[in-house]
Amino acid sequence: MRWVVVVAAPPGRPRRCGYSGPVDAAAIGVGMLGTAFMGKAHTLAYRMIPAVAPDLALRPELVAIAGRDPARTAAAAARYGYARAASGWEDLVADPAIGLFDNGGPNDLHAAPTIAAAEAGKHVVCEKPLGRDADESLEIWRRVAATGVVHLCAFNYRFVPAVRLARDMIAAGELGDLRHVRIRYLQSWGADPATHDRWRFDPAVAGSGALGDLASHAVDLVRFLAGEPAAVSAAARTFRPTDGRPAVDDAVAAVLELDGGAIGTLEATRFATGRINQLAWEINGDRGTLAFNLERLNELEVFEAGSRGFRTVVVSEPGDPHWDLWWPPGHGIGWDHTFVHELLHLLRAIAGETPVAPHGATFEDGYRAAVVCDAIRRSAETGVREPVAYAAA
Amino acid sequence: MRWVVVVAAPPGRPRRCGYSGPVDAAAIGVGMLGTAFMGKAHTLAYRMIPAVAPDLALRPELVAIAGRDPARTAAAAARYGYARAASGWEDLVADPAIGLFDNGGPNDLHAAPTIAAAEAGKHVVCEKPLGRDADESLEIWRRVAATGVVHLCAFNYRFVPAVRLARDMIAAGELGDLRHVRIRYLQSWGADPATHDRWRFDPAVAGSGALGDLASHAVDLVRFLAGEPAAVSAAARTFRPTDGRPAVDDAVAAVLELDGGAIGTLEATRFATGRINQLAWEINGDRGTLAFNLERLNELEVFEAGSRGFRTVVVSEPGDPHWDLWWPPGHGIGWDHTFVHELLHLLRAIAGETPVAPHGATFEDGYRAAVVCDAIRRSAETGVREPVAYAAA
Amino acid sequence: MRWVVVVAAPPGRPRRCGYSGPVDAAAIGVGMLGTAFMGKAHTLAYRMIPAVAPDLALRPELVAIAGRDPARTAAAAARYGYARAASGWEDLVADPAIGLFDNGGPNDLHAAPTIAAAEAGKHVVCEKPLGRDADESLEIWRRVAATGVVHLCAFNYRFVPAVRLARDMIAAGELGDLRHVRIRYLQSWGADPATHDRWRFDPAVAGSGALGDLASHAVDLVRFLAGEPAAVSAAARTFRPTDGRPAVDDAVAAVLELDGGAIGTLEATRFATGRINQLAWEINGDRGTLAFNLERLNELEVFEAGSRGFRTVVVSEPGDPHWDLWWPPGHGIGWDHTFVHELLHLLRAIAGETPVAPHGATFEDGYRAAVVCDAIRRSAETGVREPVAYAAA
Amino acid sequence: MRWVVVVAAPPGRPRRCGYSGPVDAAAIGVGMLGTAFMGKAHTLAYRMIPAVAPDLALRPELVAIAGRDPARTAAAAARYGYARAASGWEDLVADPAIGLFDNGGPNDLHAAPTIAAAEAGKHVVCEKPLGRDADESLEIWRRVAATGVVHLCAFNYRFVPAVRLARDMIAAGELGDLRHVRIRYLQSWGADPATHDRWRFDPAVAGSGALGDLASHAVDLVRFLAGEPAAVSAAARTFRPTDGRPAVDDAVAAVLELDGGAIGTLEATRFATGRINQLAWEINGDRGTLAFNLERLNELEVFEAGSRGFRTVVVSEPGDPHWDLWWPPGHGIGWDHTFVHELLHLLRAIAGETPVAPHGATFEDGYRAAVVCDAIRRSAETGVREPVAYAAA
Repeated sequence: MRWVVVVAAPPGRPRRCGYSGPVDAAAIGVGMLGTAFMGKAHTLAYRMIPAVAPDLALRPELVAIAGRDPARTAAAAARYGYARAASGWEDLVADPAIGLFDNGGPNDLHAAPTIAAAEAGKHVVCEKPLGRDADESLEIWRRVAATGVVHLCAFNYRFVPAVRLARDMIAAGELGDLRHVRIRYLQSWGADPATHDRWRFDPAVAGSGALGDLASHAVDLVRFLAGEPAAVSAAARTFRPTDGRPAVDDAVAAVLELDGGAIGTLEATRFATGRINQLAWEINGDRGTLAFNLERLNELEVFEAGSRGFRTVVVSEPGDPHWDLWWPPGHGIGWDHTFVHELLHLLRAIAGETPVAPHGATFEDGYRAAVVCDAIRRSAETGVREPVAYAAA
Repeated sequence: MRWVVVVAAPPGRPRRCGYSGPVDAAAIGVGMLGTAFMGKAHTLAYRMIPAVAPDLALRPELVAIAGRDPARTAAAAARYGYARAASGWEDLVADPAIGLFDNGGPNDLHAAPTIAAAEAGKHVVCEKPLGRDADESLEIWRRVAATGVVHLCAFNYRFVPAVRLARDMIAAGELGDLRHVRIRYLQSWGADPATHDRWRFDPAVAGSGALGDLASHAVDLVRFLAGEPAAVSAAARTFRPTDGRPAVDDAVAAVLELDGGAIGTLEATRFATGRINQLAWEINGDRGTLAFNLERLNELEVFEAGSRGFRTVVVSEPGDPHWDLWWPPGHGIGWDHTFVHELLHLLRAIAGETPVAPHGATFEDGYRAAVVCDAIRRSAETGVREPVAYAAA
Repeated sequence: MRWVVVVAAPPGRPRRCGYSGPVDAAAIGVGMLGTAFMGKAHTLAYRMIPAVAPDLALRPELVAIAGRDPARTAAAAARYGYARAASGWEDLVADPAIGLFDNGGPNDLHAAPTIAAAEAGKHVVCEKPLGRDADESLEIWRRVAATGVVHLCAFNYRFVPAVRLARDMIAAGELGDLRHVRIRYLQSWGADPATHDRWRFDPAVAGSGALGDLASHAVDLVRFLAGEPAAVSAAARTFRPTDGRPAVDDAVAAVLELDGGAIGTLEATRFATGRINQLAWEINGDRGTLAFNLERLNELEVFEAGSRGFRTVVVSEPGDPHWDLWWPPGHGIGWDHTFVHELLHLLRAIAGETPVAPHGATFEDGYRAAVVCDAIRRSAETGVREPVAYAAA
Repeated sequence: MRWVVVVAAPPGRPRRCGYSGPVDAAAIGVGMLGTAFMGKAHTLAYRMIPAVAPDLALRPELVAIAGRDPARTAAAAARYGYARAASGWEDLVADPAIGLFDNGGPNDLHAAPTIAAAEAGKHVVCEKPLGRDADESLEIWRRVAATGVVHLCAFNYRFVPAVRLARDMIAAGELGDLRHVRIRYLQSWGADPATHDRWRFDPAVAGSGALGDLASHAVDLVRFLAGEPAAVSAAARTFRPTDGRPAVDDAVAAVLELDGGAIGTLEATRFATGRINQLAWEINGDRGTLAFNLERLNELEVFEAGSRGFRTVVVSEPGDPHWDLWWPPGHGIGWDHTFVHELLHLLRAIAGETPVAPHGATFEDGYRAAVVCDAIRRSAETGVREPVAYAAA
C-alpha cells in the first residue's frame, strides 16, 4: 500500500513524543513590530520553541517590541517578556542586538520597516500580505533579496501538519495528475466591522479587503499544494455601505486555471454568516483526493483511487509533520501552534539547516500571491479572464 | 424564535405519519419512454404513489413502455407492470389510453417525442436537460406551452425535503439579503467511461457532458433557491483522451453573479476522484446560512444570525415538506423518493390542484437552465463574462 | 489489501444497477395483519419487490388486510392495493389464497394469530419483539417450528446494507478477535407520549417499553454481528409519571459480556432528548473496527489495524449487499428499503433458494433476543449479573 | 432564547482577544517532579501563562525539576528553562524557593512526595489518579488537607472550554432533570505496549490499568457535569497475555446509576482499535442534551428541547470559557492549552482569587474518583451492583 508512505515513521516507531536532549544553541535577538494579534501569536511561539523543538540550532531571545501606543507597547513588553519596549520600528532596525526583525504591523507598515531591517542586515519575517499590491510586494522582495538575508512571508497555514502532509503526498505523486482544486476562506465578521481594527477597511492602509486578508492565504495554499495558476476569472463585491468613499472589497470569487490543466474555484469573504474561520480546500487528482478544513485542523481527508471511501487521517502520529515537537498520538494541536512550526522553520533556515523554500513561503511567494490577487481584482473589474505572469527578482 | 416557522406542524402536532383515507381517484394512463435508469426510477415512483400519497386526486396507471431494444422493452414491461411494451415512442404518442407521456430517453430524444406527445394532447414530463442547448430547449418549451398541456422538467432535487424546506425558508425571508451561493456537483466515473452509456460522451446525442448532466441540476437549484443569475465567468475541460474527435466537456467551473448582488461559484465534474454523487451547496444571507449535501439528504444545516453554531436539522418531522407521505420522525428517505414527490406533484398539477411552478420545474425552467449552461460554455470558450438573458415564450 | 474483499464486485465490474430480465415468477398470496406503521411499511415493500428484485422467484400478491377498525381497514385495503379487507386475523388465517401471513399487529397479537397461521400451513413473518417475554417467544417459536413453515422475525436492521456488509466482514474474520461492542438505540418521544399508540405504554399489551421496542433491535444486532451474550448487568428506569399503575420501562442500560471474551455496553431509551432515531454501534476487534449510525444508514465507518484513520465507506457500490436492486453508485436508499430487502429474503427462503438464517432472523432469533431482554430486566431488578441461557426447540 | 445565556459576552462584545495590561504579579517558585509527558505539558503551560493570562496575580518561576535519570533531568532543566536540575523529589521538598510542588511522576510516587511537599508548606498539584486506590487517595487527601495548602488533582479535561461551558449550562439548569449520561474513553495502544512506559502495566506501580488511567477521567467528568454516582455494575478484562503474573485491567465497562435518577454507561479501554484518544460523552436532560468528543475539542453539540436539531457550537467566541486568554473567534486551541487553563486556575487559587472547587478538582475529587473506580473494580469481580459511598476528611 503506497499511501502516506512519505510520512512513514522511522523504523522502531517510537510513540513517545519529543523529549530531547539539552539545548545548547546559539541565540538570536528578536525585534517585534506589532503588539496585537500577530505580535501575541508570534511571541508566544518564540516562548514555546526552546521547550519543544527537538534539536534547536538557534534560540530566540526577546530583545524589543515596538507598537503605535507607548503605554500599550510597554505593557506588551512586560507581559510577553521582551527586554525593552522600543520607541518605534526605526529603533528596532537600529538595535545591533536584534538579528531577526519580525513585522506584524498593518499592511502599510510592511514595506519600509522590512526593507530597512533587511538593509541593516537583519533576517526578516513579514506578515501577509507582503505588500498592498503586486508592485509593492515586488519592491519588498527585490530590495530584501538583494541584501542576502533570510526572508519568510508568514503564510502560516503551510505549517498546519495536515497541510504539510498534503503537500508532501502531492509532491510525491500520490494524487497523480491534478484535475481540480477548490478552496474557500470564509469569515463573517464583516457584518460587525466595529469589532475589528479600522485600518482593515481603509484602502490606503490595507490595500484590499478579503482579497489581501483571506484570499492571499488561499492563493498561497493553491500554489503550495497544486501549483501555479495560469489564469483567473473573477467577481468581487463590497457589501458594507461605503457612503461613496473608497472601500475595500468584502468578498471575491474566482475560477482558477492552473498550469498543468486543472481547473477550480477560489473564494474569500467576510460575509459568510455563520462561518467564523473556515479555510477549506479539496484537491482531486486522477489517483486520489485530499480535503482539509481549518475548523478541524488535526484531520486530513484522504481518498485513494480504487479504494472504498474517504479516510479521516488524524495528523498527530509518529512520522507526521511536526509531530516530534508535541504529544502522544491523538493529542491535537491548536491554531497557534502553526506559528511555532513556522518560526522554528525560520530559525533553522537562519542557522543554515534548511532553505526557507519550498516548505516555508519566501518573499517571492509573497509577491506571487500578490500577483494572483491583483489578477483577481482586475478580472473582477473588467470581466475578462486574466493571465498570471510573474516577474523575476 | 422565528426560524423554521414556515414549516411548523399544524396545531396538535400529530406525530403519526400519513395513513389516510381510501383512494377514490380518477386514473391517468402513463406512457414511459426509457427502460433504464430513469425509466426504472419513474416507474417505481408511480407504483409507490397510490400507497403513500395522503389525498390522491389522480391515480397513475401503467399503460405502456417504449425502449430501443424490443426484448429489453418486453422484459421491462413485465417487470415494472406496464400493460404492454410499445414498439416505439410514436406508438406511445398514438395511444389514446395514455394521458401522461414520461420522457426518460437520451437527450437527443427529448425534443421530437415530447413535442409530439404534447401536440397529441398528452401531459408531459421530460428528463433534464430539456434540450441539448438553449435553442432546442426554447423550441420544446414554446411548442409544448402552445398546446396547453401540463409540463414538468424533471429537476428532481427540488423535491428533496431539505431542499424544499430551504426554498420555503429563503422565500419567507429567513436568510435576509443573499450574499453568496456556492454549489458543486461532483462525480468521479469519468475516469471509467466504460461503465456508462456511450451516448453520454457523444456531443451529437448528449449536447454536452458534465454541463448538461450535472451543472444543469446545479443551475436549477441556484435559480430555485437563490434567484436568477445575471452573469457567469467560466472555464471548462475535457480530461479524457478524445483522439481528435468532437468530445463533450468533463468538467466546468464558473463564477456566478446573481440578480440582487450575491456572488458565488458553481462546479460540475465527472473527475472528482472519490466523490461518487456529491451535490452540495451553501447559501449565505445577512440573516442566516443554509447548507446541504445530497450524500446526507435527510439533513439541512441551518445557521441563524446572532446564534451559536450551525444546527443539523433532520428533515423528517411533522410539518416538514413531504413528511405526510412517509414515516415517524427520524426514519429518513432515500434518493429515489424524490421521484415520488416530483411525480405526485405533477399528478396534482394535472388534476388542477396546484400549478407546476414554482415548486416544480416547468419547461420554462428547463429552458432557463439551458440558457445559463450555454452562457457557461461560451464564457469558457471566450474568457469573457457572459450575461444571462432569457427569451419569453 | 484484504479489506472489504468479501464484497468485491464480480469481474468486469458492471456499474449499472439491476435492470433485469422478465419476471416469470410464481405468486404467493399475502395476508397482512395491521394497517398502521408496519402495515404500511411492509405493504410498500411488497409493491416494490417485483419492480426491483433482479431474479424474482416468488411474486407477492396482496390478498387481504386486517385491522382493528373496519372503516380504516377498508381504506387501507383500497389505498395499499389489497384485494379485500378482512374482518379479522382469523379471516386471514382461514383464507386458502393466502400463503404468507404477515403479522404487523401490537405485541399481544403476535402469539395467537402467528401460531394459528402457521398451523394453517402459511409461512409467517412477525414483527419484533416476537413475544412479550422469553416464555411467550419460546412458545411461538416451538409451535411454529413444529409446523415446518418458513418463519422470519422482522429485525429489519439486519437488512441495512451497511449492517449486512459489517456482518460479512466480521464473519470473514476481518476484525480478528472481538474486544468490544457498544450499541445504543436512542429515541426521545417518551416525553410526548400522546404522539404514540397507547398500547406501547401498557405492560399487558406491550410486555415492556424501551426494552422490547428498542433494546430488542440492539440485542439482535449484537447477536448478528458480534456473537452471543454470556451475561448482562443492567439498570432500568421509568421516567414518566405512572400514578402507581403498572408501567413499562422508559430506558435500560446494560454491560454485556460476550462469549469469546468481548465486553461492552447496550442502551435503549425513549428519553434521549434530541435523538430522534439513533441506533448506533461500534465493534472493536484486534484487527479492525466498524461503526454505524442509522441516522446515516448508507455509510459504514471502517478502520483496519495498521492503517491511518477511519474510512467512511458509502455502501451503494457494485458488490455491496443489496446493491443489485437499486441505483448507480452514490444514490443512497432510505429507511423503508430495508423492508424490501427483508421481505425479498423471506420470499427467496419460501421459494427454497436460501435459508432464512443466518442473514435473516428466524423465530429462534426472536426468542433469543427475548431471553437477553429478560436477563436485562432481571439484572436491573436484582442488581446481580445475569447469565444468558437459551432453550432448544 | 435562554440558551447559552450563562456564557454571554459582556455588553459591547469586544471581539479582540485578551491583550491586557502589564504583568505586575508576585512570583511563586515551581518545583516539578517528572521530565516526561506530564512534565513537559505542565512546564509548557507555566511558560505560556504570563504571556496570555489577562490579569495575572501570581507569576510562576521555574525553580527546579526532578526525575529518575540525572542526565535526562539535566537536559530537561536546560530545555524547559528550570534554574536547576534537582537530585530527587526530596530536594524539591527541601527547597525554600519552591512554593508550588507539581507532581507529574508515576502513580506510586504520588503519595509520599505530595504529602511531604504539603507538610513542608508548599501548595501542591498532583497528576491523576491521585492514589493507586481509594485508601491511598484518602490518605493523601486527608494529610494534605490538614496542612491548609492549596491542592489540585490534575483532571485537566475540566478545563477544556467546551466542557466548562457544558458544566456552566447544566449548573444553570439549562438541561433540566438529567436522564442519561454516557461516556467512554477509548484508546488503542494496548495492542502495542512496547510504545509505553512499562510502569503502566505493573499493578504495584500503577494500581490499575485503563481504570485509573482513563476511567478516572471519565468518572471525574461524570461527577463534574452530571453529579454523584450512587451505584455501579461493571465488567473488566485483561486482553494482553499476562503469563500468569499480576496484571492491570485493559478495559472496563460499567452501568452508572446517579443520584437524582439518571442512568448511563461508562467505558474505558486501551483496546479500541482505531480510536487513538476518544474521550466522548453525552448527557440527556428533559430540557436538552449536550455532547462532546475530545477529538474535536473546540466544539460542543447542543440540543434544546423543542428546537430542530443539534447545534455545533464552536467554543472560541467572546464570553466562552477561557476565551479571554487566546485569539479571535474561530481560532481553536489544542489539547495542551487545557493545562494553561488548569494551572492558571491553580495560581489564582493560591493567590486567593478563587477556590479550587468546583471548577478545578481538589484532592477530595481525586479521592472520590478513586472510590468510584474501586467500586467498578469490585463489581466487575463480584458481579453485584456496588453502591458508592464517600468518607469525609
